[in-house]
Amino acid sequence: MTRRRKFWGWGYEDEVITPEQRETMAAVAQFYLPGFTPVDRAEPEIGAINLSAPRVAPPDSLAALFTADTWERAAHTYGKSTRDIVRGIEGDFSAAPDWVALPRDEADVARILDWCTSHRVAVAPFGGGTSVVGGVEIGRVRDAFAGTVSLDLRHLNRVLEVDPISRAARIQGGTLGPDLEDQLRPHGLTLRHFPQSFALSTLGGWIATRAGGHFATLYTHIDDLVESTRMVTPAGVMESRRLPGSGAGPSPDRTVLGSEGALGVITEAWMRVLPRPIYRGQATARFPGDRGFLQGAQACRMLSQSGLYPANCRLIDATEAMLNGVGDGSFALLVLGFESADHPLDAWMARAVELCRDAGGQVPDKAIKLSGGVDEARDSAASGWRDSFLRAPYLRDILILMGVIAETFETAITWERFEQFHGAVMEAGRTALDATCGGGRMTCRFTHVYPDGPAPYFTLLAPGKPGQMVQQWDTVKAAVSEALIAQGGTITHHHAVGRDHRPWYDQQRPALYGEFLKAGKQALDPAGVMNPGVVVDP
Amino acid sequence: MTRRRKFWGWGYEDEVITPEQRETMAAVAQFYLPGFTPVDRAEPEIGAINLSAPRVAPPDSLAALFTADTWERAAHTYGKSTRDIVRGIEGDFSAAPDWVALPRDEADVARILDWCTSHRVAVAPFGGGTSVVGGVEIGRVRDAFAGTVSLDLRHLNRVLEVDPISRAARIQGGTLGPDLEDQLRPHGLTLRHFPQSFALSTLGGWIATRAGGHFATLYTHIDDLVESTRMVTPAGVMESRRLPGSGAGPSPDRTVLGSEGALGVITEAWMRVLPRPIYRGQATARFPGDRGFLQGAQACRMLSQSGLYPANCRLIDATEAMLNGVGDGSFALLVLGFESADHPLDAWMARAVELCRDAGGQVPDKAIKLSGGVDEARDSAASGWRDSFLRAPYLRDILILMGVIAETFETAITWERFEQFHGAVMEAGRTALDATCGGGRMTCRFTHVYPDGPAPYFTLLAPGKPGQMVQQWDTVKAAVSEALIAQGGTITHHHAVGRDHRPWYDQQRPALYGEFLKAGKQALDPAGVMNPGVVVDP
Repeated sequence: MTRRRKFWGWGYEDEVITPEQRETMAAVAQFYLPGFTPVDRAEPEIGAINLSAPRVAPPDSLAALFTADTWERAAHTYGKSTRDIVRGIEGDFSAAPDWVALPRDEADVARILDWCTSHRVAVAPFGGGTSVVGGVEIGRVRDAFAGTVSLDLRHLNRVLEVDPISRAARIQGGTLGPDLEDQLRPHGLTLRHFPQSFALSTLGGWIATRAGGHFATLYTHIDDLVESTRMVTPAGVMESRRLPGSGAGPSPDRTVLGSEGALGVITEAWMRVLPRPIYRGQATARFPGDRGFLQGAQACRMLSQSGLYPANCRLIDATEAMLNGVGDGSFALLVLGFESADHPLDAWMARAVELCRDAGGQVPDKAIKLSGGVDEARDSAASGWRDSFLRAPYLRDILILMGVIAETFETAITWERFEQFHGAVMEAGRTALDATCGGGRMTCRFTHVYPDGPAPYFTLLAPGKPGQMVQQWDTVKAAVSEALIAQGGTITHHHAVGRDHRPWYDQQRPALYGEFLKAGKQALDPAGVMNPGVVVDP
Repeated sequence: MTRRRKFWGWGYEDEVITPEQRETMAAVAQFYLPGFTPVDRAEPEIGAINLSAPRVAPPDSLAALFTADTWERAAHTYGKSTRDIVRGIEGDFSAAPDWVALPRDEADVARILDWCTSHRVAVAPFGGGTSVVGGVEIGRVRDAFAGTVSLDLRHLNRVLEVDPISRAARIQGGTLGPDLEDQLRPHGLTLRHFPQSFALSTLGGWIATRAGGHFATLYTHIDDLVESTRMVTPAGVMESRRLPGSGAGPSPDRTVLGSEGALGVITEAWMRVLPRPIYRGQATARFPGDRGFLQGAQACRMLSQSGLYPANCRLIDATEAMLNGVGDGSFALLVLGFESADHPLDAWMARAVELCRDAGGQVPDKAIKLSGGVDEARDSAASGWRDSFLRAPYLRDILILMGVIAETFETAITWERFEQFHGAVMEAGRTALDATCGGGRMTCRFTHVYPDGPAPYFTLLAPGKPGQMVQQWDTVKAAVSEALIAQGGTITHHHAVGRDHRPWYDQQRPALYGEFLKAGKQALDPAGVMNPGVVVDP
């Protein structure tokens, strides 16, 4: 018996939130949001959820691939944004899909899309259901279609082939992060793609949404790990060649990347994999004072332009460092890391530390660690950090249960505009929190850095008003999104567009590229049933 | 007065081929192709060229932007493939465009496209006219249109803006390689994109064709140097945001990249630029014996998977090394290079040499050079190599004039298939040369390497039969192209698709991606006048 995921929030059903966890998170919330009064709300129960009957029925020949089970439909109603969790807690599953489809193989996927196409049934590939942008909420277009289906590839969960010479693996789209790593491990290989959703998200979802991963430089998005893709569309199967590089026309894979289910269902991909790193270098640099974060940004710029390519280069502002227990609020922290399966990293680390110090960073010699010959699996410090990083969405749900509004904005901007951009976005966020929630906190870190700019990630926490949290979230989301776009950023660096980001994506996207994409979609999905409303209108 | 380019071949008119150059190249050809008898053919003269009158005329309001001058039309008839040069030498300019358009600015480009769209006039962006795949030969579709225009952006040749903080520059599409570098130099910056066509090709052309450049690893194609693009299409202007990274839908720039003028005209791009390198490491490794090239390939694989990211990692087989004057035919040669504007490269080079030696390469200590604090402009060894590399197309024309067929095939393949692939492609080439030309030589080098495979570059030289060289070329081209595709490679790694590669590109490209592209093209170019026949049919 496989573990069943929570139908409303992060994690598995057996991970019941304990009173101790609530108390801890309440203390965190009250420390961080003075005056906040936690609400004592229970996890929702499936027995209390009533869903309307499915409006259409698949033919007998496909019936075995579909379920209208209440738990399944509820679990496939939303993604995992705060907005989604709040609606789940409030028992609002009015957006539930009519059916959940569970294909056993690629042929099933094609048969399901055929039926959807011929019966005006809208279908959203569910991936791991961790979208925070409304990307899997097919109920949003319920009224425009005869039916809605959430397509779950959980049975397409295998690493099918491994090529150790070229370091690549053919992997099915429905494979979850941990399952994929488990199947690569016996080959001494790893994909090393660890988005925060890692535990519950799938390869197909990562590709469809251009997920951001482990590496802070170079291989920041899943994009560069993709060697070839295979996608089932209503018009048939589209598969690219396995090639290390090509200049033959615009890249087909680069159209699949970011298509978010609007063009088809990614059933397989050849992915570039790596041996597990055995050499590591780690260091932290502190940047104290009011301009510490901007000084740290300067260090990140120098590092990103150095050609040293650190695996980790994550700058955390003073408040967020404090919240994460790695600071006291008086300094921004830059976490720097190198890793290699090939060579010791002394020269790399020495120069990187020099750059941090040149930028005003404090790097005590004891904050520099170099190790060699240690397999990561036995490296408890690294896995400790990762566990806590991957645990964050679970803890966020506890905060939401007690009435906290939590939201994140991730973007990218060129270096020369960063200071102005950061100031304007922080101002917009704080103003919105004050007006909407009567206060709150906003922090910033860098998740990835490029030679021409950083990818800043803003986190907002604020006291919510039970019963009004969705509206509060909407107001704050809109205000900060406006600022991101007005200041020249991107509405998303790695969370995707989905439905929630559409108004701002539409401003950002070149209008003619929208026309191009729309025309292309019509060729692959003539009935417009593939995840309508995501990325592009049919 | 600006220098005028040759209307039929590589270089400028003032670069008259001297008797001494002919003698030298004749000796090279005879050494390399025993028994070959050079033909003593003169450079063609423009006075002998008769072109049919233009079939349509632009309106008076646009007349100043067009010329029907014989020299201009002849010079814009072809690209620079052997096939093109041969036809030029033979005085066959039947494919000449009716007009050459010379817009002064972007608004002119839009006006020209408007006229072409409304009058069924096909238009090919000419770039620098260095296509070797029939990409600029608009005369190929002459009969299907009321007129044909070659669009030359030579007046859009400026670096418009430099952002030294983010290390980016806004550059016009018509800017030639040397002009672009000249304008960046005062800022201490360089694009460091040096395709073999560098002297005569343009930024817009590089982007449109996904050109391959200087770096053997990481930034192999122009693709990764592009921050944003601006393209004029018949439907209007399409411009992407300046962003260091984004995950907002499929990348618009990745559709512009590789569009080869079939979607529009690239008028500007923000490009990622670099400071000039001051630290360098260079080494050569010899791989003797029959399996030397394959052993060298093994070294390249280890280097490409090491995370060291050499700027140069070019493996040359024994015959080609001999032809290039860097070997005696008994060993394959790996040319390895590192460069940095930030740090000394001792650790990088030491490990790279270790990997070469592990793979059986001979690297005498004296073959390893490390330098620091030397500006490239004063580094005569590097510039010597580059000059000779960039001079090759000019020398090739002398060979063609004397009756040699010269052709190159550039592709990519994953490592695990490389040995089989290399054997089969060499076999196909040699068989075709024997049957078509009664012999010839074929060699291979790597231009770029990736963690999952190399980009092999095959060079063929054979004695041609004057008067039949185009047909001979066609036969050999088809035979090797078949092998590339049958063996799983790409029909082009960085020379683009154009018209010559279409039959094989159509096999390689996912059919549904072709449908997607075609539909998208119709949205941007409803009349189908943009470079028809290139990449995708209207």
